[in-house]
Amino acid sequence: MANKVKEAWKSGKAVVNGWLAIPNAFSAEMYAQCGWDSVTVDMQHGVQDYLSCVACFQGMQPHGVLPMVRVPWNEPGIVGKVLDAGAYGVICPMVNTEAEARALVQYAKYPPKGTRSNGPIRAGSYGSGGTYQKTANDDVLVIPMIETQTALDNLEAILDVEGIDAIYVGPSDLGLSLGMEPKLDREEPEIMKIYERLLKETDKRGIAAGLHNGTPEYANKMIKMGFKLVTILNDVGLMVNAAKSAVKIARG
Amino acid sequence: MANKVKEAWKSGKAVVNGWLAIPNAFSAEMYAQCGWDSVTVDMQHGVQDYLSCVACFQGMQPHGVLPMVRVPWNEPGIVGKVLDAGAYGVICPMVNTEAEARALVQYAKYPPKGTRSNGPIRAGSYGSGGTYQKTANDDVLVIPMIETQTALDNLEAILDVEGIDAIYVGPSDLGLSLGMEPKLDREEPEIMKIYERLLKETDKRGIAAGLHNGTPEYANKMIKMGFKLVTILNDVGLMVNAAKSAVKIARG
Amino acid sequence: MANKVKEAWKSGKAVVNGWLAIPNAFSAEMYAQCGWDSVTVDMQHGVQDYLSCVACFQGMQPHGVLPMVRVPWNEPGIVGKVLDAGAYGVICPMVNTEAEARALVQYAKYPPKGTRSNGPIRAGSYGSGGTYQKTANDDVLVIPMIETQTALDNLEAILDVEGIDAIYVGPSDLGLSLGMEPKLDREEPEIMKIYERLLKETDKRGIAAGLHNGTPEYANKMIKMGFKLVTILNDVGLMVNAAKSAVKIARG
Amino acid sequence: MANKVKEAWKSGKAVVNGWLAIPNAFSAEMYAQCGWDSVTVDMQHGVQDYLSCVACFQGMQPHGVLPMVRVPWNEPGIVGKVLDAGAYGVICPMVNTEAEARALVQYAKYPPKGTRSNGPIRAGSYGSGGTYQKTANDDVLVIPMIETQTALDNLEAILDVEGIDAIYVGPSDLGLSLGMEPKLDREEPEIMKIYERLLKETDKRGIAAGLHNGTPEYANKMIKMGFKLVTILNDVGLMVNAAKSAVKIARG
Amino acid sequence: MANKVKEAWKSGKAVVNGWLAIPNAFSAEMYAQCGWDSVTVDMQHGVQDYLSCVACFQGMQPHGVLPMVRVPWNEPGIVGKVLDAGAYGVICPMVNTEAEARALVQYAKYPPKGTRSNGPIRAGSYGSGGTYQKTANDDVLVIPMIETQTALDNLEAILDVEGIDAIYVGPSDLGLSLGMEPKLDREEPEIMKIYERLLKETDKRGIAAGLHNGTPEYANKMIKMGFKLVTILNDVGLMVNAAKSAVKIARG
Amino acid sequence: MANKVKEAWKSGKAVVNGWLAIPNAFSAEMYAQCGWDSVTVDMQHGVQDYLSCVACFQGMQPHGVLPMVRVPWNEPGIVGKVLDAGAYGVICPMVNTEAEARALVQYAKYPPKGTRSNGPIRAGSYGSGGTYQKTANDDVLVIPMIETQTALDNLEAILDVEGIDAIYVGPSDLGLSLGMEPKLDREEPEIMKIYERLLKETDKRGIAAGLHNGTPEYANKMIKMGFKLVTILNDVGLMVNAAKSAVKIARG
Repeated sequence: MANKVKEAWKSGKAVVNGWLAIPNAFSAEMYAQCGWDSVTVDMQHGVQDYLSCVACFQGMQPHGVLPMVRVPWNEPGIVGKVLDAGAYGVICPMVNTEAEARALVQYAKYPPKGTRSNGPIRAGSYGSGGTYQKTANDDVLVIPMIETQTALDNLEAILDVEGIDAIYVGPSDLGLSLGMEPKLDREEPEIMKIYERLLKETDKRGIAAGLHNGTPEYANKMIKMGFKLVTILNDVGLMVNAAKSAVKIARG
Repeated sequence: MANKVKEAWKSGKAVVNGWLAIPNAFSAEMYAQCGWDSVTVDMQHGVQDYLSCVACFQGMQPHGVLPMVRVPWNEPGIVGKVLDAGAYGVICPMVNTEAEARALVQYAKYPPKGTRSNGPIRAGSYGSGGTYQKTANDDVLVIPMIETQTALDNLEAILDVEGIDAIYVGPSDLGLSLGMEPKLDREEPEIMKIYERLLKETDKRGIAAGLHNGTPEYANKMIKMGFKLVTILNDVGLMVNAAKSAVKIARG
Repeated sequence: MANKVKEAWKSGKAVVNGWLAIPNAFSAEMYAQCGWDSVTVDMQHGVQDYLSCVACFQGMQPHGVLPMVRVPWNEPGIVGKVLDAGAYGVICPMVNTEAEARALVQYAKYPPKGTRSNGPIRAGSYGSGGTYQKTANDDVLVIPMIETQTALDNLEAILDVEGIDAIYVGPSDLGLSLGMEPKLDREEPEIMKIYERLLKETDKRGIAAGLHNGTPEYANKMIKMGFKLVTILNDVGLMVNAAKSAVKIARG
Repeated sequence: MANKVKEAWKSGKAVVNGWLAIPNAFSAEMYAQCGWDSVTVDMQHGVQDYLSCVACFQGMQPHGVLPMVRVPWNEPGIVGKVLDAGAYGVICPMVNTEAEARALVQYAKYPPKGTRSNGPIRAGSYGSGGTYQKTANDDVLVIPMIETQTALDNLEAILDVEGIDAIYVGPSDLGLSLGMEPKLDREEPEIMKIYERLLKETDKRGIAAGLHNGTPEYANKMIKMGFKLVTILNDVGLMVNAAKSAVKIARG
Repeated sequence: MANKVKEAWKSGKAVVNGWLAIPNAFSAEMYAQCGWDSVTVDMQHGVQDYLSCVACFQGMQPHGVLPMVRVPWNEPGIVGKVLDAGAYGVICPMVNTEAEARALVQYAKYPPKGTRSNGPIRAGSYGSGGTYQKTANDDVLVIPMIETQTALDNLEAILDVEGIDAIYVGPSDLGLSLGMEPKLDREEPEIMKIYERLLKETDKRGIAAGLHNGTPEYANKMIKMGFKLVTILNDVGLMVNAAKSAVKIARG
Repeated sequence: MANKVKEAWKSGKAVVNGWLAIPNAFSAEMYAQCGWDSVTVDMQHGVQDYLSCVACFQGMQPHGVLPMVRVPWNEPGIVGKVLDAGAYGVICPMVNTEAEARALVQYAKYPPKGTRSNGPIRAGSYGSGGTYQKTANDDVLVIPMIETQTALDNLEAILDVEGIDAIYVGPSDLGLSLGMEPKLDREEPEIMKIYERLLKETDKRGIAAGLHNGTPEYANKMIKMGFKLVTILNDVGLMVNAAKSAVKIARG
C-alpha cells in the first residue's frame, strides 16, 4: 500500500486525520468514507483495545485512508501488535526523552534498524507479492507525542533520533504540564510560541508536525500556520455535537 | 420507570427521538446524553441484533431516555425478547392490516390482553418493588409503522385496534410503495395529504403520529404540523454529516 | 454422546437441570461444574442469542452436562440452528395445540420423521465416528412447554404427538393465563390439581414432566411428587440471592 | 458494485464460491484472498449470526469477492437484514413450493417487484452516488435451494417464478429426503438423473444451477457437467482437512 | 459523582465491596443491585480485560455503586485506561516498595501530582459540567496491595507516599509469600499479628485498610477488627457456591 | 490435568503443536480435533488478545490438547493472566539475556520459585480437588524464544536458568537478526549449524528444543534432527493454502 500521508508530506501538503474512539467496525467504515487522508484508532484515550483496532482497520480498509494507531503507552508488545495488524503509523503518547524516542523507533522497525519481530499477519496482506517486510521500515510512520515540559526541554535530542517521521501535539496534556487548563484550540501566547518553536525545529529536520484540534476552523488555521497533520476531535465528539444541535433545532 | 413519552403525549407535547444504528454501548451512552426524550435501537435497518440492543440499553440507562426498539419484523419471538430486555416501546415495520396490528398488540401485552410470556429479565429491574408486570401492559408503547399503500387502505381498521399508542411513518418506504423515490423530508403534495389524513385519524383516536426525518429543520416543521414523535436520521448519519463537513472546513 | 437425561428417565430417576441467562462462556463453564445433570441455555427470557448459546455450550462441554436450549419461539430456523450447535434437548415455549406440537417435532427431526436440514456443525463433533445423524432423531429431546389454558385444553392431543419426550411447565405463564399472579413455587390447589393431571397424563404415555422452580426445597418436593426434570431459578438468580445475603451478613 | 457472478453467468462461465462457517472477520478476510469469485456466509448451518455476517462482509470487502448469504430460513426479517448488510446474493434453504419461491422473491426485491423495506445501511456504500436502490432489484441474486422430493415435484413451478436467478442444490438434504445417506459428492445414478433434470430445466430458463461439493475434484467435474456455481466444503472444513494431513506428515 | 466510599471512610464507616470476574455487562448490572457500596472489576485474576471492564462499568452505572478496578499490573498504560473508563478507585497488586507506590500514584494523578494523561472519555460523563479533571486527583482512590514479605518490610515507606488512600490485602498471596498455603479467611496468629500492624500503621496515617474475604461472616469479623473495605469472594464464586448448594438440596 | 507434553519429552518423544491466529472458539475447537499434542494461542503475531485466548482455550478443552500461549512480550501482567486462564505452557518471544530468562521464570512460578500471584481462575478447574497450586510450578512449561544473535551470544547463560523447560526458535526473526530474509524452513548452512548447537546445548541440560515450521515435511525432518516441539504454520495459514489449492483444482 502506498503511504499517502508520506507522499503528501513529500509534496508539502498537510493531511487531515480522523480519530476513532468508538470500538466498532461499522462505525469506522462509515466514518472512513468522509474524506480523511488517514484515520487513527485511539488506543490511549479512546474506548479501544487491540481487537477493536483490528475491527476498525477492517472497516476502514476498502476506503483508502491510511490506518494509524495511537498506542496506549510506549511499550514493545503493543507497538508490535498494532503494526502487525496493519498500522502504517504509530502515534505514541508522552515521549519525553531521547531514550524514549529511541525505544519507540526500535519497537517499530525491523532489524537492523530496530528490534520489531516478524509476523505482519494483517499488514502483510495490504501489500502485494509479499513485499511488506522489505518496505515496512520506510513506510511505517513513527510519531512521538510532544506534550510535556520535559519533552520541550529535550526537544532537539528527541527530534534528532533517526527514524522519526513526525511529532504530534496533545494540547490538553501540554497545558496540564504547564499548569494550564486542559483544553484544545488554545490561543495563549505562551502556547503559540511553543507551536512556533516546534514548527521551526521539525521543519528544519524534514519532520512533520501534527496537532489535535477541537474545531475544523482552528485546524484550518493550524494548517496555514504550518502543521502538516491535523485531527478534529474524534468520531464520537463529532456525533455528540451534531446530535445536540439536531435536538435543539428540532425542538425549535 | 415512568414512561416520559406517554406523559409528554398526555400533556400534548411532541417528543424528539434518537435512533441507533451503531451496535455499541459506548456510542449509545454518549449519544443518549444529547437531549433526546427517547432513543430507539433500530434492529430492522440498523446494524443491530438482540445482544447489541441489550448493550445499547445498558449504555443509555443512566441518562434518562426512554428505551425503544424498532424490531426487524412483526414476529412474537423478537418482540418478547426486546421487551424483556427493557424496551418501553416497540416500533414495528410494515404493519399493513388489522390482523397484523392485532398480532403485534398480542405479542406485546401480557394476558389477558395478549400472549406475551413472563420473564422481564432486564425490564424488571427498571422498576421498583417488582411491579413491572402489573404496569407493563399500560407502560409499553405499541407503535405500528404505516408505510405502504395497503396500510393506508386499511388505516381506520388498523387504528381502531385496541392497544395501539402511536403510529410511525417511514417516508422512504411509503414513497417506494407509491411509486416514488425512497427519501426523507418529502414535500410532494400527495404525501402531505397523506400526512394530514394520518394526523386527523390518529388525533381523533388519541393516538400519536410519528415520523422519521432527515434534518432537524424538517422535524421541527413536522412537530408544528402535529407529529408527536420525530426522529432525525440516526447516530451514524449525524456523525457522517458532521465528519464530511469538518474535513471540508479543515481543508479550507 | 450418551443422553444421560434420557437414561435417567428410563431408569425412573429425576434430573436436576441448570438454566443460563448470562451470555458468557466463562460463567457457563463454572456453573456447569456444580452438579447439574443438564444445563439449558434460555434463549427466550435469558440474555442469550445464538452465538452466546454456542459460547455457553463450549464452556459446558468438558463438564459432562447435557446441553439443552429453550428456544425463543417455535420457529424452524432457530430450532435447526441450536440443534446444529449441539443441543441435545429443545424446550419450546407456548406450545398450545397439537399442530404446534407436530410442527416442533418436524423442526427437530431429520427425515423421514421431520424436516430438519442436515449440517450438525458442532453437534457432529460431540459424537464419534460420524454417527450423529444416525442417532440424533432418537437422542435429541423434544420438550414443549405447557403453560396456558389453551394448552391444558389440548393436553391429550399434544401429548399424543409422536416424538415428544417430555413437557415443561412454566408456572408464571400458567398463572398469568389463568388470571393469577406470575410466580414460581405455587401452592394454589387449582394449580396442584393441574400438576397432578399433567403427571398422570405424561406418566401414562411414558413422557417426563418438567417444572421450573424458585427454590431447591420446592424442587425437591416436586421430584417427590413425580416431576422428572426440575430447574431452580437460573445462574443470575442464584448469584443475586447469594450476593444480597452476603452483603447483609457482612454488614452485620 | 458490479455483480461479477451475474456477469460470469451471462458469458456462460461457472463461478467458484467460498463458504464461511467461522464467525470471524479476520478469518474471512484471509479466506477471501484465495481466489474465490464469491463468498457466502452460511447463516443456516455455519456458526454465524447477523452481526458475524456483517463482520465477515467487512473482512471480505477489500478483496473483490461477491458477498452472499445463506439465510437460516425463508423469513422476511432476516432476508431484509442481510441485504441491507450488503449481500448481493441470497441462498435460501428448503424452498419446496411455488408459493415459497414467490415469498422469497418478494422479501428480496423493492416495490413494485416485492416488499423489501428501504434502508441499505451497508449495502448502500458498496455503490457510488447513491444508486443502490435503483439497481438492487437487478443486482441481487435470488437463489432458492432445491433439496427435497417436494421441491423436485414442484420444480417447474418454482423455476417459473419471476426473479429467480439460480438454484442451489444441497446434496446431503436431498439424499436424506430421498431416504439416502446425507453426504456430498454423490455418484448414485438416481441423483445424477436429478442433476441432469435440474440442469436441463434451469438452462432452458436462463437460470444458473449451483451445487455444494466436498472436494475440488468433484466440483470441477460438476462444472464440466454444467453447474454454474460450485462450492467446496467451507472454511473450517478445508482447515481441518489440511491440519489433519499436516499432523500426520509431521509425525512421519 | 460523589465518591461514596471516601465519604464513608471520612465518617469512620466500613464499606462492602463487590468483585467481578465474569466479563459481562448483564451479569454486572444484576450483581450491582445487591447492596454493595463499591464494585471492583478484577482485571488481574478475573476473566476481564479493558473492554469487558468498560461493559461492566456500563452495567453498574445506574445502580449507584462506586466503580473500581484491580489492574493486572502496576503499569501506566492500563492505569490510565481504566481511569479514563470511569474507575473511581485503582487497586494495584504486588506493590512492594516505596518506588512502586510512588509510580502508582504518578500514573493515577494529573499534573502536577502525577503524569496521568488527559482524556477521561467515559469518566468525564460521570460528573457534571465538565468538572471531572478538577476533582479527579482528589476523588480517585489509589490503593496498593500489600501481599508479600517485601511489602511488609517496606510498609512504613509505602504508607508514607503521598496520595495513597487505602491498602488492600490479598491473604492468599500473603500466605504464599510467607511459605503458607494460599487461602482466604486466615486464622494463623502470625497473620493476625500482621493484620494488627497493618491496621495500626494505616489508622495512624488516616489510610483505610481493605481485605479480601471468603465468607461474609469472616468479612463482618474483619470490619469489627478495623478493616474499612471488605470484599467477599467474587460474582462467580458466590454463584458457584449457591448452585452447588441448590443442586444438593434439590436432590434431597 | 496431566501435562502430556512433559510426559512425551520424558519418554524422548517429539510433540506436534498447533498454533492459533484466528480469535475464535469455534475455529479453535475444530482445529483442536486434528491430532495435535498441544495447541498454542499466538498472542504475539496472531490476531489474539486475552479474552480471545480464553475463548480458544474453552473450545480446545474437551479435546485433550495441552493449552499453551505465546505471550506478546516478557511482561508479568500478561504472563500471569494467561496462566490463570489455563495455559500449561508459556512461549515468550525475544528472550535475549539471562536476566530476561530469569524474569520470565519469576513471572511464571509461584513463590518461593517466583512471584506469580495466586488466582488460577480457569486453570484451577482443569485439575481435580483443588491441587492446581501445588503442582503448577512443576506442570507449567516455561519456554523462552531464541531468535536473535544476542540470544545466541548468551545461550548458555539463558539455558542455565533454573526453571526453563524448553526453548523455541523463530526462524524468521533469527534470520532477520542475522541479516537474512525472514522465512521458515531454512536450509542455510549457517542456520543449520545454529540449530545443531541449540540441540546440543539443550539436550545436554535435559531441555527440549522447539521450532516453527512452514511445512509438515520440514517439521518431520526437524523431528528427526532432534527437535522435540514442532509447529506447522498456523490455523489460518493451513486454511489459506488449502483454499487456494481447492480453487485452482475446481477451476481445472
